[in-house]
Amino acid sequence: MARWAHDRFGAGKTPKQVLKIASRLLDQEQRILVTRITTEHARVLRRKFKRAVHHELARCVTVDKKPSPKRPGTIAVVCAGTSDLPVAEEAAVTAEIMGNRVERLADLGVSGLHRLLGRLDTLQNANVIVVVAGMEGALPSVVAGLVSKPVIAVPTSVGYGASFGGLAALLGMLNSCGSGVTVVNIDNGFGAGYAASQINALAEK
Amino acid sequence: MARWAHDRFGAGKTPKQVLKIASRLLDQEQRILVTRITTEHARVLRRKFKRAVHHELARCVTVDKKPSPKRPGTIAVVCAGTSDLPVAEEAAVTAEIMGNRVERLADLGVSGLHRLLGRLDTLQNANVIVVVAGMEGALPSVVAGLVSKPVIAVPTSVGYGASFGGLAALLGMLNSCGSGVTVVNIDNGFGAGYAASQINALAEK
Amino acid sequence: MARWAHDRFGAGKTPKQVLKIASRLLDQEQRILVTRITTEHARVLRRKFKRAVHHELARCVTVDKKPSPKRPGTIAVVCAGTSDLPVAEEAAVTAEIMGNRVERLADLGVSGLHRLLGRLDTLQNANVIVVVAGMEGALPSVVAGLVSKPVIAVPTSVGYGASFGGLAALLGMLNSCGSGVTVVNIDNGFGAGYAASQINALAEK
Amino acid sequence: MARWAHDRFGAGKTPKQVLKIASRLLDQEQRILVTRITTEHARVLRRKFKRAVHHELARCVTVDKKPSPKRPGTIAVVCAGTSDLPVAEEAAVTAEIMGNRVERLADLGVSGLHRLLGRLDTLQNANVIVVVAGMEGALPSVVAGLVSKPVIAVPTSVGYGASFGGLAALLGMLNSCGSGVTVVNIDNGFGAGYAASQINALAEK
Amino acid sequence: MARWAHDRFGAGKTPKQVLKIASRLLDQEQRILVTRITTEHARVLRRKFKRAVHHELARCVTVDKKPSPKRPGTIAVVCAGTSDLPVAEEAAVTAEIMGNRVERLADLGVSGLHRLLGRLDTLQNANVIVVVAGMEGALPSVVAGLVSKPVIAVPTSVGYGASFGGLAALLGMLNSCGSGVTVVNIDNGFGAGYAASQINALAEK
Amino acid sequence: MARWAHDRFGAGKTPKQVLKIASRLLDQEQRILVTRITTEHARVLRRKFKRAVHHELARCVTVDKKPSPKRPGTIAVVCAGTSDLPVAEEAAVTAEIMGNRVERLADLGVSGLHRLLGRLDTLQNANVIVVVAGMEGALPSVVAGLVSKPVIAVPTSVGYGASFGGLAALLGMLNSCGSGVTVVNIDNGFGAGYAASQINALAEK
Amino acid sequence: MARWAHDRFGAGKTPKQVLKIASRLLDQEQRILVTRITTEHARVLRRKFKRAVHHELARCVTVDKKPSPKRPGTIAVVCAGTSDLPVAEEAAVTAEIMGNRVERLADLGVSGLHRLLGRLDTLQNANVIVVVAGMEGALPSVVAGLVSKPVIAVPTSVGYGASFGGLAALLGMLNSCGSGVTVVNIDNGFGAGYAASQINALAEK
Amino acid sequence: MARWAHDRFGAGKTPKQVLKIASRLLDQEQRILVTRITTEHARVLRRKFKRAVHHELARCVTVDKKPSPKRPGTIAVVCAGTSDLPVAEEAAVTAEIMGNRVERLADLGVSGLHRLLGRLDTLQNANVIVVVAGMEGALPSVVAGLVSKPVIAVPTSVGYGASFGGLAALLGMLNSCGSGVTVVNIDNGFGAGYAASQINALAEK
Repeated sequence: MARWAHDRFGAGKTPKQVLKIASRLLDQEQRILVTRITTEHARVLRRKFKRAVHHELARCVTVDKKPSPKRPGTIAVVCAGTSDLPVAEEAAVTAEIMGNRVERLADLGVSGLHRLLGRLDTLQNANVIVVVAGMEGALPSVVAGLVSKPVIAVPTSVGYGASFGGLAALLGMLNSCGSGVTVVNIDNGFGAGYAASQINALAEK
Repeated sequence: MARWAHDRFGAGKTPKQVLKIASRLLDQEQRILVTRITTEHARVLRRKFKRAVHHELARCVTVDKKPSPKRPGTIAVVCAGTSDLPVAEEAAVTAEIMGNRVERLADLGVSGLHRLLGRLDTLQNANVIVVVAGMEGALPSVVAGLVSKPVIAVPTSVGYGASFGGLAALLGMLNSCGSGVTVVNIDNGFGAGYAASQINALAEK
Repeated sequence: MARWAHDRFGAGKTPKQVLKIASRLLDQEQRILVTRITTEHARVLRRKFKRAVHHELARCVTVDKKPSPKRPGTIAVVCAGTSDLPVAEEAAVTAEIMGNRVERLADLGVSGLHRLLGRLDTLQNANVIVVVAGMEGALPSVVAGLVSKPVIAVPTSVGYGASFGGLAALLGMLNSCGSGVTVVNIDNGFGAGYAASQINALAEK
Repeated sequence: MARWAHDRFGAGKTPKQVLKIASRLLDQEQRILVTRITTEHARVLRRKFKRAVHHELARCVTVDKKPSPKRPGTIAVVCAGTSDLPVAEEAAVTAEIMGNRVERLADLGVSGLHRLLGRLDTLQNANVIVVVAGMEGALPSVVAGLVSKPVIAVPTSVGYGASFGGLAALLGMLNSCGSGVTVVNIDNGFGAGYAASQINALAEK
Repeated sequence: MARWAHDRFGAGKTPKQVLKIASRLLDQEQRILVTRITTEHARVLRRKFKRAVHHELARCVTVDKKPSPKRPGTIAVVCAGTSDLPVAEEAAVTAEIMGNRVERLADLGVSGLHRLLGRLDTLQNANVIVVVAGMEGALPSVVAGLVSKPVIAVPTSVGYGASFGGLAALLGMLNSCGSGVTVVNIDNGFGAGYAASQINALAEK
Repeated sequence: MARWAHDRFGAGKTPKQVLKIASRLLDQEQRILVTRITTEHARVLRRKFKRAVHHELARCVTVDKKPSPKRPGTIAVVCAGTSDLPVAEEAAVTAEIMGNRVERLADLGVSGLHRLLGRLDTLQNANVIVVVAGMEGALPSVVAGLVSKPVIAVPTSVGYGASFGGLAALLGMLNSCGSGVTVVNIDNGFGAGYAASQINALAEK
Repeated sequence: MARWAHDRFGAGKTPKQVLKIASRLLDQEQRILVTRITTEHARVLRRKFKRAVHHELARCVTVDKKPSPKRPGTIAVVCAGTSDLPVAEEAAVTAEIMGNRVERLADLGVSGLHRLLGRLDTLQNANVIVVVAGMEGALPSVVAGLVSKPVIAVPTSVGYGASFGGLAALLGMLNSCGSGVTVVNIDNGFGAGYAASQINALAEK
Repeated sequence: MARWAHDRFGAGKTPKQVLKIASRLLDQEQRILVTRITTEHARVLRRKFKRAVHHELARCVTVDKKPSPKRPGTIAVVCAGTSDLPVAEEAAVTAEIMGNRVERLADLGVSGLHRLLGRLDTLQNANVIVVVAGMEGALPSVVAGLVSKPVIAVPTSVGYGASFGGLAALLGMLNSCGSGVTVVNIDNGFGAGYAASQINALAEK
């Protein structure tokens, strides 16, 4: 199984420091995930590790020494708007490197219900659903009302004015009228992907 | 046209004071609305004015000396949960005493979309839609996505914990991804009914 | 009728991406509005589309393939101070591209009442009034007290210290003592212009 | 000159404790002011001190052993709504016991400008103006725009929902666009009356 | 499978109303759960339904017409202090009525680590862990660091001063350094039990 | 008497715009004050107006066509720390251009009481005292306890962490236990100087 | 040495529950402290334990089976106003039952500096100083500026309006310009007394 | 003994100003500490003072004219994550220049309890423990539960989203269930080191 060197890498470390940590982790593990990186970090990692993949939109690098087959069930990662995509991708890449199949559903905002209803089958076939949304964060409630599966809600900092950096979406999701919705920190795609993988792993047993 | 003695009556005045204000207003006006009253206030008003009607759920009393025909168009008042009903009724009673036809749609939460979709016709036939919701306040976004009419959103203080007395619903509505949504203060059914009536009056011209 | 590609364009997309979206929209629509753009976005759009107009103050570009006559009624857009002009212009440009006549009234702060009272006629002749104000956000209450028309209040992030990025103005407007005032998100000129257009369209019927 | 036993008396002390403190103060001073009292405290004080006056609306008791002539100038105390009266009266009674003439102007909200403009003479003749308002707290800005005198703004906790116990009025007043407005704590009529008296005393010199 | 009439029953409805709703639900379902009730509500329900059980600490009533065997896996419900017990019990009772075996672990605060370490086996044998804590809400981080299972964190309103009604615990849990922790609303034992049951149901497949 | 073109000049206008406004004002007034400017704005103004003075620390420019004698009384401007100096200077320069004598007292923090007590005479001789402080904002309470004159408190945004941009100082000053303290917005040196001048003008009468 | 059954006893437990816990603790310990109790709890404890002492002002009961001599050094407990006394007493009683000598200094607010300066000797002779204050919470800064000893600041919920339940005092203390000030939760007299005792115990070594 | 020129040096002063202040202080003192500096400030100070040491990670410079022996007891400085190191180092350097021996323990987060338990001896041998943590700030509670020594908690601004710049960690620490924990401002390593030194000095007596 994989191990992760997670978070704040790009935000506070030099490419050299990231490289050193990544090397040390790869001595012990089959695969690693480095999140919140810049293009500069990615270039350094790819030059050193041939198997390194730069997930640009997700702002992550993964290195997988020997790809192995995925778990049978799927995790659906749904996102409300195009600006929420980086966080959604962070969740998806995290779930994939942890050995899960991921089904991506983009741009399914609550003000365009028909598109959401058109993808109902995919949602119902998933074991867990990660729902990523900024602004008013209403999507998880709607999804939880349509599908009876665990829903992990990720508020994003997408918005302006009274979104207060994602607070509006966070409060909306915590007050969700949809049963079974749990919430992670603002922009925490990694956490949602990690929790979804833990849940999907149970389904496999 | 009607005139109103509005708000905080029950919350800070004695029945006697309310009676005095109501009498003075009825000397000048055809009809009055007294909001946020207690049962005690209602009893005193009904004893004095034969035409007084106590709208219990809305916590209002209206007195209409000579009921006149309503405007042709309708105002829809939609509410998310049963606990939001008092605020929704305050909006409906306000709109009615101001001369409007009101269509009430109750218990249409976002986690039960099918019921909402089943009432789409009624929503599309209205000139204005007042949407009342507590908790995460997601309903106005969904309604604005379905119907191209002015939507006035009313957050309610219904909820607990991180609803912070209606703050979550208020922020959700202000950040609505649905275009054309405007918002009033928490629990301000009167304000929403008043604004809806002003808009509906324009349609009549 | 027009359709819009709205918001966050300049804030998160490359000029190339904006161009692509605008082109796709213009294949389907008569006219488009692109908001929150930079000068760079504007230049690219104007080079491609001959009919593109760059509304500098409003930070918008509109493209109108075949200008058509406006609705008869007018929307008044009032703003409190010169720093609030960009948000007021976003509202005005939005209303215009949606087919409305707009009457602009600038620099009518509550601490200079005489100027406001001098423009009372214009306000009373409008079907809807958009009021844009930062700092304490008191203007909508004063306007709603003078004119019996729907008032849409737009708080701006103009201010410093305890304005907390527009929170003071937002709370002031939500607590307005003027009946019939509804509120949109901080700096959301687009939303106000959109809602005003929906209301003005009703008056036309 | 007077001395005061101020604040929180009724809120945290027994009538007996208040009586004891009042007696001790009257041994040393010509006149005293006891604020935030209940009817019970007032009865006990009036039974003991013949010259005690219970200002019911202001929730204060004053005892003035030998009333002396007032200063020549006046302090105007303006209030926006009837619910703000108790705080306005606390300011007025404080200013009076400190030796000032007080001119009271009630119910002059910003949504009824004509009444305010009708009292302009009284405002212009005052040396200082105390303006008391809840909800959006817009009145001080309007007054400061009309009269070039020191304006002391008192936010009140009157309101509901997003007034957050007077926070909306407080922020509004701190962000006032009217020059020369200073602010005291929510519901702090005493503080405003005290500061106004200090300023009026300077005018007397 | 069971269906629920959830939340706010006791907080806003009469015993008669609760009885009516419960009766209607039991016509359609095998078992019901009524949460947030008072003793009075419980008495009325027990008088009517022989199989009604009043879970006093959890402030719930369940009615199970025909108890059926539980799922094989277990859900652990851990709580930090004795004051957090009502919320923990609400989670446990919810999980049980939904067909799960529940392992309760009480009074395992982070300032008494040895007791927590002594129960490590029970935690590791569970499929999901619900962790309930007020004050600083640190327990979920510690648990997630010890056991590699999905952890659902429930902040409670237990605390005073700067706990701000559970806000401190909520923020603590959202910022948990333990991977895989997801969070529900303050005091939302029901939501946590519901989500845990959905996850445990996956394990059963 | 002077007139002012106040605030936000540097923060949102080009040097050219400032120059134009300043020219227009000087056609009508004897003296002007331009606040919150950059060095660039100052250079442009000084090139055009020979009598322009750049108050670097205060970030202001004044132009006084014909300096006239000052009022007899003095305004004391006290500041707690060296980082609060720019705001204190803004207050002082504002008071001076309005025709007042200003006594500056710098670096008198509450944790160095002896220095404050050593300047007691100067404080007692002033008609009004402006007290500028960041961090915990305790200085106005201490000053108001020592001197019986109007105290205008100016919170500054100086601080870090839980100062929350001046909120801690603002709340501290609003809750001051010193009677007669009034407060202006965070960093609003201009407002404090303006109010102090209005008060000092009364003393002159 | 003593052990404590601390906090929330009165706020959430029956007298019977408190009695049971107290009995169990006294089987193992020489002395106990029960905080935040009501008069009812105190009566029950005193009936059972002859050595029980009810500290009314501190809302605590202590039981000390065999009083032993106190440590040599002293802890000073200073409080700003009379309303802060209960929290100050909770700190003092906690420190005493833990074996310390306590010096109480009451009513030493920052607006009455002379009284504070008159007690400077007592402060300088203490090993640790606990400073309890509500409203603006300025006292710890002043004390830390006068005496070079560890200062533990306790904000209280005393105040109204913008004190926001002690938040203003808490923020003021966290931003103290006095070096060496550390802070505990709002109204947490117990925590301050406990920490002071731990520090005083070091001095004894 | 040492004296300090503390804080905000780098954040608001030129290298020249810092140099001047440092020179003046060194005329009077044996050793100085300059905190929150940039590399540029450090270079200037080192060029001037031969004994200047630049503590890069701590962002401090110390100058110690004549190093003297340290106090016998030790202060432990523990930090939760690598991103918290700069604040922890500021605390450590402050304590050292004040004459204390410091024991550093890095990267002991609550989600890796075994590493913490492995360092228990070091913690128990210290006189005071400074605990530095961001995100949920849970570490001080765990440490206080393991060791009966004064614990000074330093919240850091490390985190994102709902950490709100260190607010989550601050609230967590203020609500700590561990007895004897006191708290300083966010990122205030200096304050914690200073308070720890004052306490350690008592132990020496």
